[in-house]
Amino acid sequence: MNKKFDFYFDFISPYSYLAHKQIDQIKKKTNIEVIYKPILLGGLHKLSGITPHAFIPSKSKYMIKDCKIISEKFNIPFKFNSYFPINSISIMRGVFFAEEKKKLYEYINAFFDAYWKQGLNLSENKNIESVLNSISINNNEFNKFISNERIKNKLKEETNIAYDKGVFGAPSFIINNKLFWGQDRIEFVLKEINK
Amino acid sequence: MNKKFDFYFDFISPYSYLAHKQIDQIKKKTNIEVIYKPILLGGLHKLSGITPHAFIPSKSKYMIKDCKIISEKFNIPFKFNSYFPINSISIMRGVFFAEEKKKLYEYINAFFDAYWKQGLNLSENKNIESVLNSISINNNEFNKFISNERIKNKLKEETNIAYDKGVFGAPSFIINNKLFWGQDRIEFVLKEINK
Repeated sequence: MNKKFDFYFDFISPYSYLAHKQIDQIKKKTNIEVIYKPILLGGLHKLSGITPHAFIPSKSKYMIKDCKIISEKFNIPFKFNSYFPINSISIMRGVFFAEEKKKLYEYINAFFDAYWKQGLNLSENKNIESVLNSISINNNEFNKFISNERIKNKLKEETNIAYDKGVFGAPSFIINNKLFWGQDRIEFVLKEINK
Repeated sequence: MNKKFDFYFDFISPYSYLAHKQIDQIKKKTNIEVIYKPILLGGLHKLSGITPHAFIPSKSKYMIKDCKIISEKFNIPFKFNSYFPINSISIMRGVFFAEEKKKLYEYINAFFDAYWKQGLNLSENKNIESVLNSISINNNEFNKFISNERIKNKLKEETNIAYDKGVFGAPSFIINNKLFWGQDRIEFVLKEINK
């Protein structure tokens, strides 16, 4: 049986991208199973009473450099997106579509890459469509799916559930009911896995 | 010539304590010089528009566990202070007194230990006095010094200067005009030192 942990993420979060890539590197060496948990970071921040990095000028400026040194440390291709921040709600809802289509990992990886490696403006529909095309997901079917009330509510619910578990930021990880926050805490997640 | 970096800290910050102890460990192995930069974290947060961890329930709850696992990783004696948060302004102003008395390191280490190792309530004068006694600093002289307008302004100015340099939290480090934030970024400070 594989060892599992929950990975809470939002495409809008550069640190979630850096976590995703580190987890991919670990997966190559270790048998772990990642339970991908899409949440809306904006909603989580609102629930928690946190002002996002992006809206604090000094923190925002620092974050760009910080992400760069972390990407270099782990040899992760990375470019801070010049269209940051955007509203990620559509592509986060789309995670549930990819899940139903059995393309969960492909979808997550493609959208993380599109935003944090290729630097696409994912607030434009044509760019979302091109990412969907690259993983053979039908754009019309996708749009219909993510406009469904059930799906809209599902993302809200997942975000609320995460908040109730103590999650207040992304990336976050839960293993053995223990919460870890930040890509720099992955080492502790692994320690917990190997207990 | 020793390699130097600036270390911005406030006794109120558990991560500043954890940084201080890691830096002490590094000092034993490497020739580095630390320029201690007292700042008022509350003031810095206000200038930056940041709500402190302590006032965000989910973050605050997480921080206690997070500090514990970090202290264990580095074998640092640590106890989350049950009198947290307090107003650290008096003991932060006192850093300048210790500097004049050539007891800067002793003072910093004693107050960090008092708050994050011994768990003293440092909002009580009698506890501050007992820490001062332990490093042979006269309490009356100390109180007179920290009530001086010049010293009050100095801490404000140092905080403003830090903010102007991009500092928005503690611990922060500046080396070669590069800013690093958080005890988990010390590895990058060392990398920069050894360039």
